[in-house]
Amino acid sequence: MSAKTGHCKIVDCTIRDGGLVNNWDFSVEFVQHLYRRLNEAGVDYMEIGYKNSPKLLKGADAAGPWRFLDDDFLRKVIPQKGNTKLSALVDIGRVDENDILPREESLLDLIRVACYIQDVDKALRLVQLFHDRGYETTLNIMALSNVMEHQLIEAFEEIRNSVVDVVYIVDSYGSLLPNDIDQLVAKFQQHLPNKRLGVHMHNNMQMGFANTLIGAQKGVELLDASVYGMGRAAGNCPTELLVANLKNTKYDLRPVLDMIENHMIPLREKEEWGYIIPYMITGMLDEHPRSAMALRNTPDKDKAVDFYDKLTTPEVLHDK
Amino acid sequence: MSAKTGHCKIVDCTIRDGGLVNNWDFSVEFVQHLYRRLNEAGVDYMEIGYKNSPKLLKGADAAGPWRFLDDDFLRKVIPQKGNTKLSALVDIGRVDENDILPREESLLDLIRVACYIQDVDKALRLVQLFHDRGYETTLNIMALSNVMEHQLIEAFEEIRNSVVDVVYIVDSYGSLLPNDIDQLVAKFQQHLPNKRLGVHMHNNMQMGFANTLIGAQKGVELLDASVYGMGRAAGNCPTELLVANLKNTKYDLRPVLDMIENHMIPLREKEEWGYIIPYMITGMLDEHPRSAMALRNTPDKDKAVDFYDKLTTPEVLHDK
Repeated sequence: MSAKTGHCKIVDCTIRDGGLVNNWDFSVEFVQHLYRRLNEAGVDYMEIGYKNSPKLLKGADAAGPWRFLDDDFLRKVIPQKGNTKLSALVDIGRVDENDILPREESLLDLIRVACYIQDVDKALRLVQLFHDRGYETTLNIMALSNVMEHQLIEAFEEIRNSVVDVVYIVDSYGSLLPNDIDQLVAKFQQHLPNKRLGVHMHNNMQMGFANTLIGAQKGVELLDASVYGMGRAAGNCPTELLVANLKNTKYDLRPVLDMIENHMIPLREKEEWGYIIPYMITGMLDEHPRSAMALRNTPDKDKAVDFYDKLTTPEVLHDK
Repeated sequence: MSAKTGHCKIVDCTIRDGGLVNNWDFSVEFVQHLYRRLNEAGVDYMEIGYKNSPKLLKGADAAGPWRFLDDDFLRKVIPQKGNTKLSALVDIGRVDENDILPREESLLDLIRVACYIQDVDKALRLVQLFHDRGYETTLNIMALSNVMEHQLIEAFEEIRNSVVDVVYIVDSYGSLLPNDIDQLVAKFQQHLPNKRLGVHMHNNMQMGFANTLIGAQKGVELLDASVYGMGRAAGNCPTELLVANLKNTKYDLRPVLDMIENHMIPLREKEEWGYIIPYMITGMLDEHPRSAMALRNTPDKDKAVDFYDKLTTPEVLHDK
């Protein structure tokens, strides 16, 4: 395995993915502080939220502004852009195309489209639109551990012929091991020789950083992470570990430590994410963490044996 | 990378390495419960403590009995042995040879000798003694990340000609990455073709499980771990992740979850170990965690930036 990682770029998803933990209840000051620190640290992209439309989502009123990014608001939050580019994620069926300004009128540089394998065609239509409006684009294929080979092969053909810049391998359930990353990256490289690759890994089995680094050393370019690993359920590859270990002199760990010390450790006392046994169990079972998230909101949150029995008893049906 | 791990054996170090966290203050009931659960889980070895001599160590009075295992005491703790074998660790210069009974008079099956590279000769003399008394033996070379090539090559020759059964790669500082494991395992396999290998990994950079699994897939046989990762500073590869992911039908996760739910989660509320930023910093700097352990005992325990500055400012000398 080569140790070369100088080609890599970090995409910090603390606000976007971390918002799934606290319903995007980050103050403007928190986000401004993070943006400043990521710039100082040399982090390449900051994903500052979702660009979905509140008209197309239930429960939208209660969420913080980072769930439905507005370009005017964004300009007030970040009056002066640094070297760290800005990114937003959209979901199929939840984005209003009219909300997407031409890039020269927006602070956003990158728009990423998340989808399941059966919606790759719809996702690529959105990618084309964003591309035509001047943005960098990525396609983030979720739940790859649940995708059958023939579905993937069909999707590859569409992707190969699309304008998308980067294609992501997303370990939605935190179930992938290094061996899986080796094989998936090799397969994507074989079938998509004209595309750059990205990885978004979850930490259910303490593999977030390891899988990301292994992908990087196999040639993956965009690496998703979040500060102190903040993200839904078990969370993500920690930004600080990438900044500390990628072979690139532009990265500086100190500003990320400052963010952790002053903002993330206090936040972790109020909100929960990370390596927690029910999330480990859904990860090893290759399942969505929603059953574990529900358990963590009950007094039985540490009853791991009952939870394991429930998920592994064949006659008990549970949704994925 | 092959995904084969059927040749592997798990060595659970919860009591021995976890004792470094709580000064071996485990009740007899706790240890009995763990032994029962490890048997049910199919775990191969339980390292139940150190077999050093209290006469040769300072501060011995305050420690729990697992720091200085006594064969009579052990027989009371475990009146009935199961399939899980018992192991003890000794340190060079801290073991009284007269304390080591012939194997047929002891509950112990395996005695492991830990040493730094410069003491391999002394360690192998002890190994010979334990071997002659009938025990399985391992040699655990600590701090391999700080060893120079010529030291290693010299040690390999002595080891190759010794009776030791298994040679361990120990990542004492939690500083190794998958690429390092690849290269170290390949080197050990090349120079020690007649020896089985083991790995003992620390979790400073969330690499405990990943490095262990990568070693396993390259042919390493003995895998150290501890339940819920309990071990000094950042702790170890979690036993539950090995039991859940190794390809061997003999392993059962449920008893390990029971141990975590009933014993480890309450214990973790009183004692600290795991992925904590000062330990991440000593890991990335390839240093002993003692400076971080000292910091965690002060009101400044989360002052990561000052700690990082202190360790990375060239004019400030600090011991390793």
